[in-house]
Amino acid sequence: MQNLRIFTTGGTFDKRYDPIKGELVFKNTHLVQIIENAKLNYDVKIESITAIDSLFMTDSLREEIAKKCFEAKEDKIIVIHGTDTMVRTSKFIYNKCKEQNKTIILTGAMVPFALENSDALFNLGFAFGAIFNKEYGTYITMGGQIFDYDKVYKNKEIGKFEEKK
Amino acid sequence: MQNLRIFTTGGTFDKRYDPIKGELVFKNTHLVQIIENAKLNYDVKIESITAIDSLFMTDSLREEIAKKCFEAKEDKIIVIHGTDTMVRTSKFIYNKCKEQNKTIILTGAMVPFALENSDALFNLGFAFGAIFNKEYGTYITMGGQIFDYDKVYKNKEIGKFEEKK
Amino acid sequence: MQNLRIFTTGGTFDKRYDPIKGELVFKNTHLVQIIENAKLNYDVKIESITAIDSLFMTDSLREEIAKKCFEAKEDKIIVIHGTDTMVRTSKFIYNKCKEQNKTIILTGAMVPFALENSDALFNLGFAFGAIFNKEYGTYITMGGQIFDYDKVYKNKEIGKFEEKK
Amino acid sequence: MQNLRIFTTGGTFDKRYDPIKGELVFKNTHLVQIIENAKLNYDVKIESITAIDSLFMTDSLREEIAKKCFEAKEDKIIVIHGTDTMVRTSKFIYNKCKEQNKTIILTGAMVPFALENSDALFNLGFAFGAIFNKEYGTYITMGGQIFDYDKVYKNKEIGKFEEKK
Repeated sequence: MQNLRIFTTGGTFDKRYDPIKGELVFKNTHLVQIIENAKLNYDVKIESITAIDSLFMTDSLREEIAKKCFEAKEDKIIVIHGTDTMVRTSKFIYNKCKEQNKTIILTGAMVPFALENSDALFNLGFAFGAIFNKEYGTYITMGGQIFDYDKVYKNKEIGKFEEKK
Repeated sequence: MQNLRIFTTGGTFDKRYDPIKGELVFKNTHLVQIIENAKLNYDVKIESITAIDSLFMTDSLREEIAKKCFEAKEDKIIVIHGTDTMVRTSKFIYNKCKEQNKTIILTGAMVPFALENSDALFNLGFAFGAIFNKEYGTYITMGGQIFDYDKVYKNKEIGKFEEKK
Repeated sequence: MQNLRIFTTGGTFDKRYDPIKGELVFKNTHLVQIIENAKLNYDVKIESITAIDSLFMTDSLREEIAKKCFEAKEDKIIVIHGTDTMVRTSKFIYNKCKEQNKTIILTGAMVPFALENSDALFNLGFAFGAIFNKEYGTYITMGGQIFDYDKVYKNKEIGKFEEKK
Repeated sequence: MQNLRIFTTGGTFDKRYDPIKGELVFKNTHLVQIIENAKLNYDVKIESITAIDSLFMTDSLREEIAKKCFEAKEDKIIVIHGTDTMVRTSKFIYNKCKEQNKTIILTGAMVPFALENSDALFNLGFAFGAIFNKEYGTYITMGGQIFDYDKVYKNKEIGKFEEKK
């Protein structure tokens, strides 16, 4: 019914702690558990495309993500992505899908879901709240705001997304 | 800028465990911490009207909540409310505020914010995502859906909100 | 090697929230996950005898718990138990096992493991730390202290265990 | 009464996530909150000596930690320390304090307290459970075991402490 797909690509959102390495790494995504906790009345498809820190995202991976969005039969798509290059990836998605009637929202987290005081669940909830009410297009949502994909940048000094003037 | 106010009234969302009583009770709201974690780029006013299980909500309290919504200078209002009588309270709010240009969303949680696997943060994020994109009106959001205040009921068998046929 | 068995009986320690009922209930024990997280170098057997609030513990159930302790082939036993009648159950265990060479420690929690700010994990860790260093006998540990089973009571006013004068 | 002091030095135990840097760092210690949650019936002094990853611990810092243990008026001391060089630091403490009648236990965590599935609270509880029952000496406790300071090493392959043969 609700016709929604989530693609995960890693990012801070999905990082976990590896006790042997002593650092944050990627294993399986938290999205399955998160969606179960959200107690939705409808099904959501969750698909992991990759699981990396977005600093290591390549343009060829971005093309793959854009292609996945393009080929998805759902017209509402949420992409979980690292914050550092989320804006760059959004351009690939827009360019690939701009002639489709799809609402695509990229979101992520400043603090991993698995850690205290995370913003991951709030951001995901925001993306859900926006996606059913937004026109077709490609958007980024972080920190309680939704931006057109080409009108936003990450202010790395303060760790927040801001409108591009 | 964003012009948003949150009223808290208690509900499952805000329950905490009292180790002496051995039961879930209300102390101060979690909303202040939650909003801090959400890393918003704008201010949100948080005001506690009451802190009760919504089974004990009276119509006179509902009138007070509706009056608070009516008098608020913000035109976007989120009301945190217990799920059992959220629908009834929404009618009082609608009736009081229907001629104002305000978007008012009631939300809550099936599992308290302070417990594992809570849906509280997701629901709040959803309310934020919806409130900037919805027409004026009174709505309820739970479980990844948003409903007109008069077209929803809580299915207590399964613990989910459903559209009223 | 370490020769340790844990019996669970429910209690605040193991309560979970039931979103349909809106109250704390018992499902499966958290001990399996907890022991996995503790990253032990040895095996621990975990066995659930019952899963109830200790206010509802009957003397016949206490006899069953005592019998389980008596029959256990391990000589170090931790019993997870509700705090309200933990002291009473400890007497049954002592009476049944007093002629065995076993160190038996009852512990529990004032705040469920599944909730914020729980003391469950600390108390369990304390029981482990004590059990390898204590003489044979039956003990209760709560709040960073270990008591002989017959020299302790729960001060319900302040929610702490104290030495009986 | 219980005459216990905790020194914190950082380590994995006390790491927090810094959303701007995107990595685990040290801010204030979690020990104050943890001790409050443990609901002890007695006072514990908590003192932060430093807050670093133990890979960066220098011998001169180790001497300072040992001196703090030596000068402490309490005869039971828990030192929170990173796991990678905990064993080395324990030798400095032993050498400095060996003629004092003190029980000193070093412990830490493989997973930070602030993250899901942490062993921090269990290890701390274990240290408390052991410290009231152990002879004078310097010990290390991790993973549900307590070792003499000079009979243990960290097996970095599996992330566990083992007895040195």
